Amino acid sequence: MRHLPMPRITRCPLRATLSGTAILLATTVTALADPLPSWGDTDAKSRIISFVEAVTDPASPDYVTPAARIATFDNDGTLWAEQPVYFQLIYAVEQVAKMAEADPAILTSDALKAAASGDMNALLATGKEGLVEVLKTSHADMPLSEFQSNVAAWLDTSRHPTTGLRYDEMIYQPMLELLSYLRDEDFATYIVSGGGIDFIRVFADEVYGIPPEQVVGSSLTASYEVVDGVPMIIKGDALFFNDDKGGKPVGITHHIGRRPILAGGNSDGDFEMLEYTTAGDGARLGLLIHHTDATREFAYDREGHIGVLNRGQDEAEARGWLLVDMAQDWQTIFPVDPKN
Amino acid sequence: MRHLPMPRITRCPLRATLSGTAILLATTVTALADPLPSWGDTDAKSRIISFVEAVTDPASPDYVTPAARIATFDNDGTLWAEQPVYFQLIYAVEQVAKMAEADPAILTSDALKAAASGDMNALLATGKEGLVEVLKTSHADMPLSEFQSNVAAWLDTSRHPTTGLRYDEMIYQPMLELLSYLRDEDFATYIVSGGGIDFIRVFADEVYGIPPEQVVGSSLTASYEVVDGVPMIIKGDALFFNDDKGGKPVGITHHIGRRPILAGGNSDGDFEMLEYTTAGDGARLGLLIHHTDATREFAYDREGHIGVLNRGQDEAEARGWLLVDMAQDWQTIFPVDPKN
Repeated sequence: MRHLPMPRITRCPLRATLSGTAILLATTVTALADPLPSWGDTDAKSRIISFVEAVTDPASPDYVTPAARIATFDNDGTLWAEQPVYFQLIYAVEQVAKMAEADPAILTSDALKAAASGDMNALLATGKEGLVEVLKTSHADMPLSEFQSNVAAWLDTSRHPTTGLRYDEMIYQPMLELLSYLRDEDFATYIVSGGGIDFIRVFADEVYGIPPEQVVGSSLTASYEVVDGVPMIIKGDALFFNDDKGGKPVGITHHIGRRPILAGGNSDGDFEMLEYTTAGDGARLGLLIHHTDATREFAYDREGHIGVLNRGQDEAEARGWLLVDMAQDWQTIFPVDPKN
Repeated sequence: MRHLPMPRITRCPLRATLSGTAILLATTVTALADPLPSWGDTDAKSRIISFVEAVTDPASPDYVTPAARIATFDNDGTLWAEQPVYFQLIYAVEQVAKMAEADPAILTSDALKAAASGDMNALLATGKEGLVEVLKTSHADMPLSEFQSNVAAWLDTSRHPTTGLRYDEMIYQPMLELLSYLRDEDFATYIVSGGGIDFIRVFADEVYGIPPEQVVGSSLTASYEVVDGVPMIIKGDALFFNDDKGGKPVGITHHIGRRPILAGGNSDGDFEMLEYTTAGDGARLGLLIHHTDATREFAYDREGHIGVLNRGQDEAEARGWLLVDMAQDWQTIFPVDPKN
């Protein structure tokens, strides 16, 4: 909330000092500006705008006070891309490789060796146990500040294998506009991700305008320690919270303590968040990003390990959820053009 | 942050439309108003104001951007009273009594029987195990909404044994002023309590102006369930997070993701929060409320089960922490006068 843009002219408490003409002018300019220019003129865009207008117009039966305007969004596949695998896993693999350069003795298992050689298929073949080992090696048993410095350095140096973009450039322009539009309308915008809270916080403020306190995610245990007189947070190696599926409403309750009125996701891992959000009283909006654009992004939904969207697709219409068709509804995908 | 008072006249983005005279006038009025009228003119008040001015004056070497102005406060003994025992324990005991009226068969142990008969000494004699049983019976294995309705009903009907006040009237007027002053200066004010997050959220917004998303506390596990078609959060019976001592910096990291620049507490359970807060770069303020006023409140510090303040007192001066002497530094304790 501390990243809200400056209040619009029509909301200023001093507006009484303006002439009626100035107010009228300002209101007209606001009404004419398109808050979602990268969204095509399809049903998706009009449903989003109708919802926002319904909950922000004091004369509307669906009016919601600003304090209760909570919007929660998944991250992987909803705010940024997630192919060929979750970017956080790419970080983990590349970090293990970097650590092995400094100390090859850390490669004590097939999973770590596969990661260090950049062989994602060999790594995936080691199963969940192997993945956990790679994640722990790159995420656990270190000061939080060190972990976050490592992630920031990785973002600065690593590039996506097919687009050549920085990973934090593979964010969706239409979603940036939606976040901004919602904040302009006094919503608080949260990330509620199955990904790691400490990982996402490294870039969410700069990239999405979402400050650390509005990021909810999965996490490892942590402890407070005073090391050589310096108080610090140390990341542990046990799972503390799994912010996925039914964990998302629980994470929302824990962090926010209010039920959102808008939730956006892209996979069945987001189903419960949308179900919980849209079960509340009054106007609610659940939206699912459907990855339909093999040319400009990636096309995937019912198969594979990532972004599986079965129940969400099957039930979206009956539940009144908005299924956003990336190919049809988005005029732009990324803020910058892919390099390759 | 959504509960910020209306912006001051001097912060309005439209101030350029005001005449210079009006700005000067508004600034002067602001400067003359005492933000902490219930604080006596002692060193405590001047240190607080000096700190706030140092971090909010853009020309100051200690200036901190609004986004980083995080202030965290303990609740029991810091924002409201905690004698004769934590109010949440009183809730638990009275709730068990109420449940036993409806169904005496729930009284399956000495601890529950002691609670139902209101015999706090007998309950305390059953030890930690007995306390946990009473807490679980009154807090666990029920929908969160039911728990919070119960707490709200209790606040409406129960009264403090010695003052006759509602429990949510036993809040400290000087701390309400400090919270309000900090928010006026674009701080985000958080509660970081060893008490239960779900309990505190019932009243924190109305009583302190601290919305649910700015409450950090201890918690039980929770789960998401769809019961008869209705999605809900169910409180479990295992401890999820203990937000006390070293848990406080961890809870702050988890919820807020930034290090506070001001932290206030009253017991050694807050030591690590103050240590972590004041170890950061730049100007920092740690303050400890010292319960010195047996006449108007309660006097206690080094002994007993509640609000024990040994290390905090011993090290406050060396660490530069402000020890607030309630009897000396506060002109008023509660916003309303005790009835007895």
